[in-house]
Amino acid sequence: VRTIAKPVAKLIDEFSRLPGIGPKTASRLTFYLLRTPKEQALALADALRELKEQTVFCSTCFNIAEASPCPICRDESRDRSIICVVEEPLDVLAIERTREYKALYHVLHGAISPVEGIGPDKLKIHELLERLKVEPVKEVLLATNPNLEGEATAMYLARLIAPLGLRVTRLALGLPVGGDLEYADEVTLTRALEGRREM
Amino acid sequence: VRTIAKPVAKLIDEFSRLPGIGPKTASRLTFYLLRTPKEQALALADALRELKEQTVFCSTCFNIAEASPCPICRDESRDRSIICVVEEPLDVLAIERTREYKALYHVLHGAISPVEGIGPDKLKIHELLERLKVEPVKEVLLATNPNLEGEATAMYLARLIAPLGLRVTRLALGLPVGGDLEYADEVTLTRALEGRREM
Repeated sequence: VRTIAKPVAKLIDEFSRLPGIGPKTASRLTFYLLRTPKEQALALADALRELKEQTVFCSTCFNIAEASPCPICRDESRDRSIICVVEEPLDVLAIERTREYKALYHVLHGAISPVEGIGPDKLKIHELLERLKVEPVKEVLLATNPNLEGEATAMYLARLIAPLGLRVTRLALGLPVGGDLEYADEVTLTRALEGRREM
Repeated sequence: VRTIAKPVAKLIDEFSRLPGIGPKTASRLTFYLLRTPKEQALALADALRELKEQTVFCSTCFNIAEASPCPICRDESRDRSIICVVEEPLDVLAIERTREYKALYHVLHGAISPVEGIGPDKLKIHELLERLKVEPVKEVLLATNPNLEGEATAMYLARLIAPLGLRVTRLALGLPVGGDLEYADEVTLTRALEGRREM
């Protein structure tokens, strides 16, 4: 005798396939949704469907959007002389939240990682170089993650872009604001020392 | 200019409404689903819909099931003289996984909690008492959680059931198997001492 209803088992299973959601969390979420009004589960179901059916990648910057080109690429008030290169659409969001950057983006959709078999050809690098040829770009800000893969990707891109005579920059590394010097790792502290500025 | 696609924002929002899922995890899950094949997001959407549309509560034990009465209540090979009283359907699953219990259940759908405004009338307690009147029950195993609310609920039920002349039992408290005596909290250790058995 099966003692768990099939729809319950199926939802636990589907939740478990999401990254960072183990079987225990998946059960907890499923039984939470069993108890809540039908509307909440259906709203989540609709949101999932709409995510896949009503979004596209911008054909210019490859950010996720409802239409291509995306609102950022279409926005004529933005500075078209800088392109900020990031790994993921989430990174665009993070930079937008600062309200400090008013230029363009290019989403690579990953970083070079020989271990995971991700070579430059799997990323939107060719598309970036094509943009640099035709758009009035003066600076490429490499905002890939400050980890092994992100650094390797930035180095690779810097070497490709250098011959084009453009300014190539990278986000500053240092202590996080609100952080505690005592708990900073050695590498971050080394970068903070190297990047020290006059007051 | 909105810089995040509406379907993306909506899904982040819906994920954030789930317990234990903060805005960061909600973003991470959403962008993960953006990258995966359409099928995975749609399978999750379907599972959510089916959870609400293809499950019911068993009219006898109030466990979640595809039909009422549920397979456990229908199973004629089960011992009908014991009812195990639990707070949630997840608890039924946990006990079934032991493969040690082959009798019936009753799901209260919560525990008495004056702080949260949950009185006995909000739980399936009346329904339990009705079952005890008509079913051939000899023992009620109170398997509510070993915390404040669960203990209070068990005490409350024990007092109601005592006049019926049935055996009322409670799950043993003690050290968890594989646990470390050194790290056991005082209350658990006290219970383990009180419940010590001859070898």
